[in-house]
Amino acid sequence: MRGYTAEHSDAEARWERKFRALPDTARLRENMRRLSAKPHHVGSAYDKDNAEWLLAQLKSYGLDAKMEVFEALFPTPKSRHLELLGPARFEASLQEPALKVDPTSEQKSEQLPTYNAYSRDGDVTAPLVYVNYGAPADYEQLDALGISVKGAIVIARYGQTWRGIKPKLAAEHGAVGCLIYSDPRDDGYVQGEAFPAGPMRPARGAQRGSVEDLPVYPGDPQTPGIGAVPGAKLIPLDQVQAITKIPVMPISYQDAQPFLMALGGDVVPENWRGGLPITYKTGPSLVKAHLALAFNWDRKPLYNVIATIPGAAFPEQWVIRGNHHDAWVNGAGDPVSGASPLLEEARGLGELLKQGWRPRRTILICFWDGEEPGLLGSTEWVETNAEELKKHAVAYFNSDGNGRGYFRAEGSHTLENFVNSVVKDVPDPETKLTVWERRRLVDLARATPEARAELRSRPDLRIDALGSGSDYSAFIDHLGIASVNLGYGGEDAMGGQYHSIYDDFYWYTHFEDTDFVYGRALAQTAGSMVMRIADADVIPFQFTNFAETVHGYVGEVKKLADSMREQTRERNREIAEGVDRALADPKKKRVPPPAEALPPYLNFAPLDQASDDLTTAAAEYEKAFANGSKSQTAVNAALVQAERALIDAAGLPGRPWYRNMIYAPGLYTGYGVKTLPAVREAIEQKSWQDVDGQIVRTAAAIEREATLVKNAARTLAGGQ
Amino acid sequence: MRGYTAEHSDAEARWERKFRALPDTARLRENMRRLSAKPHHVGSAYDKDNAEWLLAQLKSYGLDAKMEVFEALFPTPKSRHLELLGPARFEASLQEPALKVDPTSEQKSEQLPTYNAYSRDGDVTAPLVYVNYGAPADYEQLDALGISVKGAIVIARYGQTWRGIKPKLAAEHGAVGCLIYSDPRDDGYVQGEAFPAGPMRPARGAQRGSVEDLPVYPGDPQTPGIGAVPGAKLIPLDQVQAITKIPVMPISYQDAQPFLMALGGDVVPENWRGGLPITYKTGPSLVKAHLALAFNWDRKPLYNVIATIPGAAFPEQWVIRGNHHDAWVNGAGDPVSGASPLLEEARGLGELLKQGWRPRRTILICFWDGEEPGLLGSTEWVETNAEELKKHAVAYFNSDGNGRGYFRAEGSHTLENFVNSVVKDVPDPETKLTVWERRRLVDLARATPEARAELRSRPDLRIDALGSGSDYSAFIDHLGIASVNLGYGGEDAMGGQYHSIYDDFYWYTHFEDTDFVYGRALAQTAGSMVMRIADADVIPFQFTNFAETVHGYVGEVKKLADSMREQTRERNREIAEGVDRALADPKKKRVPPPAEALPPYLNFAPLDQASDDLTTAAAEYEKAFANGSKSQTAVNAALVQAERALIDAAGLPGRPWYRNMIYAPGLYTGYGVKTLPAVREAIEQKSWQDVDGQIVRTAAAIEREATLVKNAARTLAGGQ
Repeated sequence: MRGYTAEHSDAEARWERKFRALPDTARLRENMRRLSAKPHHVGSAYDKDNAEWLLAQLKSYGLDAKMEVFEALFPTPKSRHLELLGPARFEASLQEPALKVDPTSEQKSEQLPTYNAYSRDGDVTAPLVYVNYGAPADYEQLDALGISVKGAIVIARYGQTWRGIKPKLAAEHGAVGCLIYSDPRDDGYVQGEAFPAGPMRPARGAQRGSVEDLPVYPGDPQTPGIGAVPGAKLIPLDQVQAITKIPVMPISYQDAQPFLMALGGDVVPENWRGGLPITYKTGPSLVKAHLALAFNWDRKPLYNVIATIPGAAFPEQWVIRGNHHDAWVNGAGDPVSGASPLLEEARGLGELLKQGWRPRRTILICFWDGEEPGLLGSTEWVETNAEELKKHAVAYFNSDGNGRGYFRAEGSHTLENFVNSVVKDVPDPETKLTVWERRRLVDLARATPEARAELRSRPDLRIDALGSGSDYSAFIDHLGIASVNLGYGGEDAMGGQYHSIYDDFYWYTHFEDTDFVYGRALAQTAGSMVMRIADADVIPFQFTNFAETVHGYVGEVKKLADSMREQTRERNREIAEGVDRALADPKKKRVPPPAEALPPYLNFAPLDQASDDLTTAAAEYEKAFANGSKSQTAVNAALVQAERALIDAAGLPGRPWYRNMIYAPGLYTGYGVKTLPAVREAIEQKSWQDVDGQIVRTAAAIEREATLVKNAARTLAGGQ
Repeated sequence: MRGYTAEHSDAEARWERKFRALPDTARLRENMRRLSAKPHHVGSAYDKDNAEWLLAQLKSYGLDAKMEVFEALFPTPKSRHLELLGPARFEASLQEPALKVDPTSEQKSEQLPTYNAYSRDGDVTAPLVYVNYGAPADYEQLDALGISVKGAIVIARYGQTWRGIKPKLAAEHGAVGCLIYSDPRDDGYVQGEAFPAGPMRPARGAQRGSVEDLPVYPGDPQTPGIGAVPGAKLIPLDQVQAITKIPVMPISYQDAQPFLMALGGDVVPENWRGGLPITYKTGPSLVKAHLALAFNWDRKPLYNVIATIPGAAFPEQWVIRGNHHDAWVNGAGDPVSGASPLLEEARGLGELLKQGWRPRRTILICFWDGEEPGLLGSTEWVETNAEELKKHAVAYFNSDGNGRGYFRAEGSHTLENFVNSVVKDVPDPETKLTVWERRRLVDLARATPEARAELRSRPDLRIDALGSGSDYSAFIDHLGIASVNLGYGGEDAMGGQYHSIYDDFYWYTHFEDTDFVYGRALAQTAGSMVMRIADADVIPFQFTNFAETVHGYVGEVKKLADSMREQTRERNREIAEGVDRALADPKKKRVPPPAEALPPYLNFAPLDQASDDLTTAAAEYEKAFANGSKSQTAVNAALVQAERALIDAAGLPGRPWYRNMIYAPGLYTGYGVKTLPAVREAIEQKSWQDVDGQIVRTAAAIEREATLVKNAARTLAGGQ
């Protein structure tokens, strides 16, 4: 076991085996039944009730637990109105019907109506334009088709890009309103039978969700960068950057269909077509739509529940584990399928403590509130405790909704080897392979020939980088704390219940991990990770995988710049050759993009140098590590800061809250990660004059890391 | 101009320019109105009426024209019945409704009902299984999903593979019946507005069509290989191989939907999903379907109309041009949009004759009957006149339905350079580029980087090889006569009217080449080709493109064998590694294919040698040709036989009617071509013991061609 003496390694293996025997599927089921029994969004009675129950449970396990309360802006609908004007006037129902077979779907008085949190108030009347997923490439396509959204209400389908990007980009292109609907091709009958016959979204199911401008900052919109504690200075509502610029509303496909059928214009491109039995067209519509939204702009309490297990050897080194407990409605899948296993993990650790186990490091177990509106509870906690966390945090392990299938993890690549090592010890409940081996073989079956060769030769499976979308964001993005997000899934068509009243106990126990064996696997996996990192003699960071990954990212951004140059060159050449003239169809509108200047050549030397230096330092560290540590205390103290070196205090361009120079959610992807974000986004956005400067800043972060790793290696070797 | 002396070249250019000024859009429109005024399928009154009118027109242009009559088996429906049994009993309407706006759609008494010609009679009751397009890969997928069609009625969607393959493969897999429906994703509302609002197939539109086993032989099913003239020996009906083994019926999606909704089983893979608002499942259905079909198995007359313009210099060398005139119903798109321009071509040539033009070779202009049921008219004519054609035929130029957009051609690669040279002289009506340049630029815009490099450097655009699906088949496949199929299209969503009562004058003049400028372009293009090859001093075959293409095909079949070996090796390795165990989902049925023996290494040396010899001979011919011919008569006599060298009298394995060793429709693709078919299909079908033998036969054909070309080169050079 990496980071363990031989003696400690054996003991750890015994404790972990004991731990993994403890999570119980019957308890997981009962936890879910209890936590998802009623709607429990931020500010609801059952949200607080759940928090109190969680606190009591943790205490009953013998853990030292407390409630930490914050307050954040949380708008709820005052009035919602959407209609199609004109001769075939249609008023959208904006209602998800209760279903007889599904008892909790009938809790109408406690349910939040369908809406997008942090949509601004608005009352707009305008023609409609269909924008596909409303992603940047979709607007390029609309430009090429000669369609403008200026002054229009756009109708976008859910999917591909994070929902908050849709109203953001629509507003940037001049739209006055935004509808987001759930197309049956993406999570409805095209994918499987609709609920309650199957798991997929029914005709009148809609997806609630936040449209806070998360890629600029998450958390309470009125207190970016600081904890939303009593007395915190609030940004006035009318100055809050994170609220949308136009009103936005999520609707079901039954509500969407009349609006889509009102669209004129040409037939949309093939990959813009959804699953409704209509001809999808771009618009604009001849008739107008009327969207009127008003919200109660209240501040609501957030109830984080946190248990602490003090470390016996390194109490000042914290290992943090979390999952949110708030939901949009009943939230059996999101988040209870992850929160319920976390509670079983806590019970298991409580049991071990009773049997005499003592973690060497301090463990914090966190149930976050307010994740759904904008990672509120975790972000405010991190911002409030930032100075402590910078000193003490070793790593953060996050989970959220969990399902049946294959292990997956995203996170800091300093932990890639560690994550691999733990999941090699977790059995898959269906196949009796380890979850590591199952994942490797499933990847192998779906891989390209190049990827297959790597899967067969590389000791560790790769983990993806973290973007945003759950509570790890403040840890990794704002403070530079090594983080991992993990879970199971991929065998069931999850998604059709997402953020609707149907994401409940009935749905989950009929269509997902119905016997909770993957809930148990999650508890076993995450608990083993927490134990193994908490108990290690030397924090088991490994830098060679990280260096290799960063080297790969550097290659990607170089290739991106080259391929943009080649594409522009080719496009300009085709324009000169007359391609646009040949493609012109007198019966169709088309506005081909004009010739443009070639992207300049960029100075990637600082990134190449830093990446090389990091590789050298990582190898040096591995060599020293292999010889064994004579200086655990000193090297641990250095390693706690390892991920912090990636932080640049000035943050990313235009969004200073994001300070990690290696990982960030994309400004125009929302959840989707952009690695080396300052460089990559400057290239993508063609901000050519900025790229060289961002290369220097990013390279400096990598050089800081290289220096830290080299010093750690020397500490190890020198036995200080 | 290739094959012309300088003096003849100038004269030819002048005559062609005169010719291209003659086709007239108003006449094209009137030709279409006349020919599509009533349903005119084989055996109908208006089919004969059209033939007589065409004959009269040709004569009125001053041409020597005659009717050539054959007789062929042509079944028509006696009774059709399709129902879904069980509690939600549903009876399919099997009717295409008349539409008020579309006058000819109301000619109910003259329309053929929807059916598939050469379906056998049958009365079957069985559960349903959905087979996607019913192609070979779909059955492999069903095997992997653990679904058998044995004893079932399969329901397949139209598209991807030729329709006749669907009942053929279904029967080979043990099905007892076959339904083929038009999914809206393929040619309905997903692609564009349904007729009459737009051009696409409406809810109750169905696609008639032949299911004769064309890849075994086309033409009259009772007289394979011989002309169906009075007294020809007929194969008894119960011994006819080309009739389907199970009853098969085409239906609309409105009729199909209840059957699809009755299917149980798992959700189908992503690329199996159509555009109906349902969850597509594999089946089987719990309830059964009942299909009962009976046909009148009559023999009907075929009226081919043929005009002859005798050649002034080489009357024994024939240039043949054809388009069919029969339709499934009114057939404005198929075939009148091609037949009407052919009539204008004939008128143009008649005009030139009046002005003093005399073709050096004999020109035959053919209006074929009975193409729709199975290329009947052209095949019987070719079989009847086989000995003459072997001696005299230089080339055959075919067209069929024509539309708005880009020039396209498929054909013999000995004519690739020739086709390119002609279309460099034809103006595109929309862009004023030549149709050659427009096509090149459109290809460029859509090409991969490798293809772009070739498009910019290769003097000739590549033409695809010919499969089947129109009247060129007997010429190229049975006799080895160099053939080209050509037309325009790609700007409009043609297809939704295909083989329905809505393929009529109203549809065509609202949604296709509405001002007939591409009808004029077709007449100009095909007429110029016919003139230029008929008038040449030396037949303008060019063998370097052909040799390069054959070399490419040899590379493809070698790569095919290698990649099948690699795939099998990889698959076996994955089985050994446990991939199937990892992918096993206890909630889903899955039967992964077992490990199998590695394909053997094959002896491709004869093909490599032959391909090299052909390349050398072609280069020698080009060199001699560049020096000018001193022996036109001798070299022309050799060149007439050039394509015949590709014929092997024993034909392809299991289908002796097909004798061209380079080009054939695929046994399991139907229309889609398989080049080097004997070799390629033996590999695809894993008939490993046959491959080496087929390599030898195919190489021998290429060697015969190489020898002929080398001799022609020496004839040219030697000035015999």
